[in-house]
This record gives sequence, C-alpha cells and structure tokens, in this order.
Amino acid sequence: MLYGHGGDIYTYEKDMLDFSVNVNPMGPSERVIEAVKRSAANISAYPDIRCRALGRRLAERLEVPADHLVFGNGAAELIYTLTLAGKPEKALLPVPAFSEYEQALNTAGCTVEYEETKRENGFTIDEHFPDRLSRETDILFLASPANPSGRAAEREVLLRTAERCEELGIRFVLDECFLEFLPDGEKRSLIRETGRFRTLFILRAFTKIHAMPGLRLGYGVSSDERLLEQISQVRQPWSVSVPAQEAGLAALEDAEAGRVERTARMIGTERRHMEEELQKIGIKFVSSDANFILFRSDKDLFHALESRGILIRDCSDYRGLGKGWYRIAVRTAEENERLIREIKSILTF
Amino acid sequence: MLYGHGGDIYTYEKDMLDFSVNVNPMGPSERVIEAVKRSAANISAYPDIRCRALGRRLAERLEVPADHLVFGNGAAELIYTLTLAGKPEKALLPVPAFSEYEQALNTAGCTVEYEETKRENGFTIDEHFPDRLSRETDILFLASPANPSGRAAEREVLLRTAERCEELGIRFVLDECFLEFLPDGEKRSLIRETGRFRTLFILRAFTKIHAMPGLRLGYGVSSDERLLEQISQVRQPWSVSVPAQEAGLAALEDAEAGRVERTARMIGTERRHMEEELQKIGIKFVSSDANFILFRSDKDLFHALESRGILIRDCSDYRGLGKGWYRIAVRTAEENERLIREIKSILTF
Repeated sequence: MLYGHGGDIYTYEKDMLDFSVNVNPMGPSERVIEAVKRSAANISAYPDIRCRALGRRLAERLEVPADHLVFGNGAAELIYTLTLAGKPEKALLPVPAFSEYEQALNTAGCTVEYEETKRENGFTIDEHFPDRLSRETDILFLASPANPSGRAAEREVLLRTAERCEELGIRFVLDECFLEFLPDGEKRSLIRETGRFRTLFILRAFTKIHAMPGLRLGYGVSSDERLLEQISQVRQPWSVSVPAQEAGLAALEDAEAGRVERTARMIGTERRHMEEELQKIGIKFVSSDANFILFRSDKDLFHALESRGILIRDCSDYRGLGKGWYRIAVRTAEENERLIREIKSILTF
Repeated sequence: MLYGHGGDIYTYEKDMLDFSVNVNPMGPSERVIEAVKRSAANISAYPDIRCRALGRRLAERLEVPADHLVFGNGAAELIYTLTLAGKPEKALLPVPAFSEYEQALNTAGCTVEYEETKRENGFTIDEHFPDRLSRETDILFLASPANPSGRAAEREVLLRTAERCEELGIRFVLDECFLEFLPDGEKRSLIRETGRFRTLFILRAFTKIHAMPGLRLGYGVSSDERLLEQISQVRQPWSVSVPAQEAGLAALEDAEAGRVERTARMIGTERRHMEEELQKIGIKFVSSDANFILFRSDKDLFHALESRGILIRDCSDYRGLGKGWYRIAVRTAEENERLIREIKSILTF
C-alpha cells in the first residue's frame, strides 16, 4: 500500500511541520480535547449507532431535519458507503480530484468518465458544465472548494448543476469538506437546497475545520431517505466511535461560539499573505478560496523541504496534474513564514 | 433502521444494566482509559494508516509477521471490507450467526447458503462439517466460540475445516472475537496456523476482551498478502482512529500483565455459577464456553427485564433460532445475582 496521501508524519523519527494536510492550524479547541478525555469514561459501551444527540444538535445548526443526516467514520467512509449504497454504473469525475472518489467508485464496480478541468478555471468546473451533463451518468462527485486547487465553484453554477442532476436522475455528491474555511462558506453552501433536490448529497467533515482528523467524524446531508437507509445496509452500524460523537458535540459548541468564523477570517488573511509571498518569489500558483494552495515548481520541493523537516503534498499522482505540482496548507503566520523562508532558500540555492 | 443489535443503552432515559452485549465486565483498564485521555493531545493529526506501532507490538504477542495483520474500525468493519475485497459469489453460513456476516455478504452481492447447526450440538458445527464442504463455496464465515450460543468448536474440527478450505480454495473467515474469554483460548486459536493456510482469515477484536467497544478496534490475521492489499483498496485508509490505536497499545500492555487470563478465569467461574442458577430455576440453556449464555423462555423476558432496568438480547431475529431465545452476558458476581434474582421473580410472578 502506497501512502498516497498527506499526513504521513509517522514515517519520520523527528517531528515534521505538516503542510501536507489541510487541517485548521488553530488545532482542536480545549472544549474538544476535554470532550475526548471525558469520553474515556464511556468507551465500555458501544456507540449510539444513530448518533442521536449529535444529530439533533447538528440539525438545529444546519436547519435541516435530523433524519436527513448521516454520520461516518470521517467523510471518507461515507464516500465509500454512499457509492456502494447507490450501485451506480457510470460516474462522472471532474479531475484533478480527491483520489478516494475514484477508489470508492472502483470498489463499487462503477465505470468512471473523467473530465479534465482547466488550469485557467482554477481546476474547477466552468459555467457550461451543467449543460454537458447527460442521462448516462449515474453519479457525479464534485468538491467545492476543489481539492487540490482550493477554488470554489460559483454558487450559481452549482445550483444549475443540482437542477440538471435532479432532472436527469444523477446522484450529485457535492463535497463541502473545506467550505467552512471560507468567510462566506455558509452562504455558498447547498445544504439548505437538499430539501428540494433529492439527488443532492452534501458531504461535510468535522475533521478539517475542527482539526480532529485523528478522531474520524464526517457527515452527509440528503433528503433521499431511501439512500440513507441503503447506506446503513452496506456498512457496520457502529462506525462512529464514542469519542468522535462526544467531540463532535463539543465542536458544535465551538461553532456556536464563533470559532469557525474566526478560523475563516484568519485563514483568509494568511492565505492572501502567502499568495503574495509566492508571487514575490516567482512561484506560479492557482488562486485559492480555501485553506490550501496549489502551485508549480520545477525543483523537487517535496524532498528538499522534507530534509528541512517540512512536509508538503506532492500532487504528481493526481489525475489531470502531473509532475511539478505541489499543495501546501495555510497554517499559522509563523509557520507560513518558515515555509516561505525555506522555499526561498531552496530556490535561490 | 432497526436497532437489531445489543447495546442500545441510548434509547433509555435511565441507566440500564446491559446484559445484551458481551463485553468484559471488568471494564476497560486504567491504562486504557489513560491512553484515551493522552490521545486527546494527538487528534489533530490523521491516524497512521498502517497502524505501525500497534502492529509491531501485536505481531510480537501473537508470534506472527506484522505484515500479516490488518486493523479495522472494529472487527465489524473488517467483515465488510474482507468480503468486498474477495468478491465472493457464493458463501456458506452456519446459522444462527452474527447478523453482520450476512449483511456484508449481501453488500458484496454474494449468494448465501445457510446451514442450520443443531441445538444438541450447541449451535456450532459438528465433526462432519468439513466433509460437507464443496468447491462451489467461495467463502465461509464461522465463529468459535459461536455467537449467540457461546459454544466453541473442537480445535480438531476447525483444523480439518481449514485444511479442506485450503484444498478447495474457500476463504475461511474464522471469527475468534470471543476466544480470549476462554482460559485455554490461545491453545484453541488457529492464529498460528495462518502461515500454512493462505485461505484462512482470523478475525479478532479488542472491543470485547478489553471492554472498549466505544473506541472501535479489531484486527485480522492472514498470510494472504494479496487479500490484505485488496482490503486496503476497498476502504478509506484512515479507518482506525488515533484513540483506538493508542488504547490498543495500552490494552496489549494489560494483556502482557495477565489481564486477559484473569478475565477468563473470572468469567469461567461466573458462567458456571450462572448456569447452575439457571438450572435451578428450570431454564433451558445451551452450555457455553464463553462469556455469554443462550437460553429459552416462553415468557417475554426482554420486556419484563427492560421494565426492571436490565437489557438482555432478544434472539428471535437470529436466523435458525426464533421466538423465545435470549442471550445474556456473563458480568460481575453482583450483577449476575441481580439478573438471576429478577428472572426468578418474573417467572414466579
């Protein structure tokens, strides 16, 4: 098994500064950490297979019915189970994209058609995308903001995509796992459109915005109750652990206390600063809306930075990208400065 | 989604005494609880997708190569992923059995043939079972001790089953999730036979013996490296959380310090005592080797006990059983006495 993902800090003896994963650089809140500690007293019971307490709280926040929510052992688990549940035969996949979509589609025996998005369009779909959809497609995976480019699609284009998918009977999986890092994320979200589009499935994660990828907690929103029931049929009932459910509740308290908005503001400021710095040193990047930046370099920056104790994501294995593409997370001001300094030093060496 | 499993403590307002799940009644050790608390500091990183530290330690204990181990989000996750990975077309399932085998086989689109085991044989396979196996079967799921009866199959019969499966090319999934509750569990195990039987896949859990079902940690042992690679292809890479991996390491320290043997001795004494008590009050049960007991009653004991704050497992939904069968866990002396007292009082009412 190749690692093939960011976050491989366990391969190294020393502590690495990890720009390869796109997690909230503020780290988990004290509230979340305390919730995990408290949950230690409750691990001798199986988790609630319906995640009822967490579901009620999240439903209130999102203003959707609680029975339109489904939780997973990270959003990644839901990518596999929703694909298995729907038994699609033909998928459309705008690329470059998160590799787990493709792997989940392969697991379900689904044929995949790729559509290469363009660099000048920030590697996300263009306004003509909805018109190109056809009845032959059973499922569409799309992330907004896109990963690895960080570019968010226009809400108008996403809405037209959802409409077309509804007309054509295409399951539209819209991955909003990074949307909360945008100051206007909630306004851009299609979560509240799930009521009128039964084919729409919104994917979200606690992992990134609440900085708890080690705990595994993601969720989906859909008004297609048959699909939600099918998801529960293709997987074990206990996939979301007790610590994840309890930490999730704590994270929702953080959200209510404004932590998500504070993060988004901080990320916005820092990303713009990093983009300026990259521009100054002549690095070509894709202008991002999210908490990570995709850029090009002819130098082998992965290994050069690795030897300096910094991990970045080598994106050469992304379909539709290739050698020379790298992705970096937006972290704290100090950490970002260190990264920029190291890149400068490598490039001028 | 029906609950359809034990452990549904979340439906009740008040604390229920839970005899419906078969978890170590000593609870998680202080060491495991402390490990979960400590892990709270590490949740901002993704888990090690290869579970390397845990794998090395467990491999030493089991005396198998570390690359013959695969970890899961509970053993239940592995039931689904190993089934999906192998793409079997026809399964053989001795019943009654844990319902997740059947559901996983359905998910993989596999046809299931059921073989009803006999009550006089403790609802486990008899000595002629290996001779009835045929090349038409692709996969066989068997638990020893069996669930819900608690009866362990003879090691000799299991070995002949493994030999026949190897000859006939049948994937033999032997679920040993409850074996460590037997004082001679390690002697009965087929884990060390995985080296010579490539078709043998042993399933084990930390959940039950280490009383950490809320954390989700199970593993498989197999020398079929191709299968292990295929398992990693049909699921997300991060299925085992940071708290689960760290608690697993702590649980292995407990095991090295003799906690498993102490549990098995205590369970043996308590189970025999409970069986005597059931006999005294005229309840017919299946003689068990494990930490739970299957019995019959014409009274609706589930609801009668539920109203007295006790949960037991109504086994009427098990294929091959039906109405009137119940399963109870073996818990601590005091708790078992309370259960017996309540059953007596219900039956004499």
